[in-house]
Amino acid sequence: MNNYKVTVGLSNKHLHLSAAHIEALFGAGHKLTPTKDLRQPGQFACEEKVDVEGPKGVIKGLRVLGPARPETQVELALTDARSLGVKAPIRESGKLAGTPGCKLTGPVGSVELDHGVIAALRHVHLSPSEALEAGVKDKDVIRVRIGGERAVVFEEVLVRAGEAHLSEFHIDTDEGNAAGVDSGQEAELLP
Amino acid sequence: MNNYKVTVGLSNKHLHLSAAHIEALFGAGHKLTPTKDLRQPGQFACEEKVDVEGPKGVIKGLRVLGPARPETQVELALTDARSLGVKAPIRESGKLAGTPGCKLTGPVGSVELDHGVIAALRHVHLSPSEALEAGVKDKDVIRVRIGGERAVVFEEVLVRAGEAHLSEFHIDTDEGNAAGVDSGQEAELLP
Repeated sequence: MNNYKVTVGLSNKHLHLSAAHIEALFGAGHKLTPTKDLRQPGQFACEEKVDVEGPKGVIKGLRVLGPARPETQVELALTDARSLGVKAPIRESGKLAGTPGCKLTGPVGSVELDHGVIAALRHVHLSPSEALEAGVKDKDVIRVRIGGERAVVFEEVLVRAGEAHLSEFHIDTDEGNAAGVDSGQEAELLP
Repeated sequence: MNNYKVTVGLSNKHLHLSAAHIEALFGAGHKLTPTKDLRQPGQFACEEKVDVEGPKGVIKGLRVLGPARPETQVELALTDARSLGVKAPIRESGKLAGTPGCKLTGPVGSVELDHGVIAALRHVHLSPSEALEAGVKDKDVIRVRIGGERAVVFEEVLVRAGEAHLSEFHIDTDEGNAAGVDSGQEAELLP
């Protein structure tokens, strides 16, 4: 493995919805309205927003990302989760067993989630050829460095490599602020 | 320098006030009311709180830390600063030239600060004997590691060693969340 460079993609708080919850929140037969393609193939930001409520607070207008997922998943930075009074565990996307819930409210209805709130496990997306060039493989756990006046080495970074991926280092807003970094800046996979 | 261990002290957003601003916000002749001693000698949390306003928002009830300082200083995590619409630079405590301002409101009056809002430069406090044992000296810039499921190595950590200090690794809430750490947990100075 060499010092392969990737671009930082800052994940602001957002949620993914199941098809059933899209209908419950936005109305029967509703389809998500894409507004912007994300770097990861097939993923997009939507016009739709949802209010998220926990025991201690509300986040108004949380952005929905598409397409629909098998399970609804609310991804918050720990700062956001604390403002709701929800103790979000650090989880890989889709690994939702035993996570806390919250209340979602859309223009048409509400949903009481009994699980689905997480802080995302930081991860690097790589296409198969990028992974080969970087000398890593899917599910590796590596270190990634961001330089600058708040330089940080993030350990415990999951590699997600495959056809559905393109090089991007995904961290949340707490992690981006701790490193003093914005989307589009450079990160380096450490050997 | 060896792998000396210190305790993490998470700095939640707070502010320090000049004597003149204490009077402007809380009334002529007002003295700060200590509620809790902090680990750093002579520093204390106060009963007093202030509302902080920026172009995009307000933080209600920001905690005042004492004693009075030569200049008023508002210390925010970058997440907090963004909610106010203020671009806080990363600064060492007291280095306030060229920093942005904000509006402070207390029970008696308001103050328009033309500078003083910062995100604190992360730092390690050490007494003279602790610094000797750790093998570092005042103003060194070192790396500090926090282990666990969100393990991080923070680079660019300033050493503040001297009689007014006791071992403690000061990071803000963004940095603590990025490392998945709370006050009281352990951090390690790296050689």
